[in-house]
Amino acid sequence: MERQFVEELRLRLPAHPQLRLGVGDDAAVLRLSQRSDCVVTSDLLADGTHFRLPSDDLRRVGRKALAVNLSDLAAMAAQPVAAIVSLLLPRNGALATARRLYEGMLPLAEEFGVAIAGGDTNCWDGALAISVTAIGETTPAGLLRRDGAKAGDCLLVSGALGGSRLGKHFDFTPRVREALRWQRDFDLHAGIDISDGLAIDLRRLCEASNCGAEVELANVPVSAAAERWAAMSETRLSPLEHALSDGEDFELLLAAPPAVAQVMLREQTAADGRLTQIGHITAERGIRGRDAANNLHDLPTAGYEHGTPN
Amino acid sequence: MERQFVEELRLRLPAHPQLRLGVGDDAAVLRLSQRSDCVVTSDLLADGTHFRLPSDDLRRVGRKALAVNLSDLAAMAAQPVAAIVSLLLPRNGALATARRLYEGMLPLAEEFGVAIAGGDTNCWDGALAISVTAIGETTPAGLLRRDGAKAGDCLLVSGALGGSRLGKHFDFTPRVREALRWQRDFDLHAGIDISDGLAIDLRRLCEASNCGAEVELANVPVSAAAERWAAMSETRLSPLEHALSDGEDFELLLAAPPAVAQVMLREQTAADGRLTQIGHITAERGIRGRDAANNLHDLPTAGYEHGTPN
Repeated sequence: MERQFVEELRLRLPAHPQLRLGVGDDAAVLRLSQRSDCVVTSDLLADGTHFRLPSDDLRRVGRKALAVNLSDLAAMAAQPVAAIVSLLLPRNGALATARRLYEGMLPLAEEFGVAIAGGDTNCWDGALAISVTAIGETTPAGLLRRDGAKAGDCLLVSGALGGSRLGKHFDFTPRVREALRWQRDFDLHAGIDISDGLAIDLRRLCEASNCGAEVELANVPVSAAAERWAAMSETRLSPLEHALSDGEDFELLLAAPPAVAQVMLREQTAADGRLTQIGHITAERGIRGRDAANNLHDLPTAGYEHGTPN
Repeated sequence: MERQFVEELRLRLPAHPQLRLGVGDDAAVLRLSQRSDCVVTSDLLADGTHFRLPSDDLRRVGRKALAVNLSDLAAMAAQPVAAIVSLLLPRNGALATARRLYEGMLPLAEEFGVAIAGGDTNCWDGALAISVTAIGETTPAGLLRRDGAKAGDCLLVSGALGGSRLGKHFDFTPRVREALRWQRDFDLHAGIDISDGLAIDLRRLCEASNCGAEVELANVPVSAAAERWAAMSETRLSPLEHALSDGEDFELLLAAPPAVAQVMLREQTAADGRLTQIGHITAERGIRGRDAANNLHDLPTAGYEHGTPN
């Protein structure tokens, strides 16, 4: 199957200006822009953990496998260049499965100018797993790291949070364009994408930056899906709690000096993922939320961590 | 588990001059040498297909997952730089499994100056799978592609072939050093690593180069393991047939003009994987073997293709 599928894929994949050698040799060869660094990230999605077959649509699964990696590149303000796709396919119906996954992935790759540069396709007796490695390059605006936040920085978040499992966790648009533009135009101090929930990812950003944060809970942008999920589910979490902990929002969480944040908020356009200021960075460590009565509480950062075992 | 393991790993991984940002942010950042292209390859190994637990040692499995990728970089004459490692771990004993895999992988990474730059660690209810993406860079000597062979070129192979499943498929040393030196010193026309067997990989090289080949069967270097395997196994294949079709030799198959090949053969040192001339490239397509009676036969190129399904 692999040979037939690789041949199909090779005919279908468009040329890419930075892909010197694509599917078909022992490795792919990319030409990065001069003075760029190579930015690499990898995410593996598995049936039963990150999606569930047969109820989930394979095209959405394929799209997501690439999208989560593009979200990681966005979080670094890196320009996506290429992706390497490794598939572990259930033996039964392997070719059809591979085709459907690519049907979902290729339009997203095209939208973001990502060359599918190669990979590995295997069949086995187990469940479906997809490993995508995305390769990007730094731009002249430099890297957006998670360890540069400073006390007094404003915390900004794109879009609205929570309830992503009602659909957004498949259909989100990675914030690549926003990240590149904001990094080019503004002096951002730190950034991360929200994959495991605002509370956890904020904690990560703060730990990397040796600082803490205060979140104005009333300002956290709660999605309509978080409201719906809170009404439907039996967890008895409030919509706000869903927004803080659901994860898979794939929005950007940014730290920027107050003057910069004000300009970003003022100048945002309809094309952007709407930016909201949700709090600020503190010198004191720990993540605290300020409630409607103006009281500060430690924010629980348990939430959703992938594949928590043992 | 992931958090604990990533923290362990971060403390254990040595610094690397080309790794600007390693495990711990949303992506890794590599600085490639000036004027180098980025060479990327990925291989996925799965329990039951590429190895078998619990009988195979996890350290050997981890080592192999990196080594097969380094062999692909060798086949391009690319200098290895970094690797991204994604694990799909059976939930039961996940942390111990991950540690053992890295115990096997890290010494090889160190030997070849490869930074472990990141990856993704997941647990699930399925069997073990390991996806490694290796990133290398081109050298001033340029790329070794598989599509440059020309009629009249000599075919050279490193090492000895066959019977690798008796141990070499785990313990081989990827021919990175040899490939880099030969590419630097000699005008090679084409190269490929032997992963699926000499016959199949020669066919691939010839198809990519729009040519054929004649193999002097008496000159094919048959390993002692191929002899042992032929004596032990019930396949009734001869040692030569094993050498042609077993695969997982991870030796280099090269095409070079006759004058170049003569110098390479004459100048080889004990440090090299021993080079043998096994035949030559023909304008006529197809892969033929010349037997002891000087008769030419089409060489069967069925052999071992990974994960053949459906």
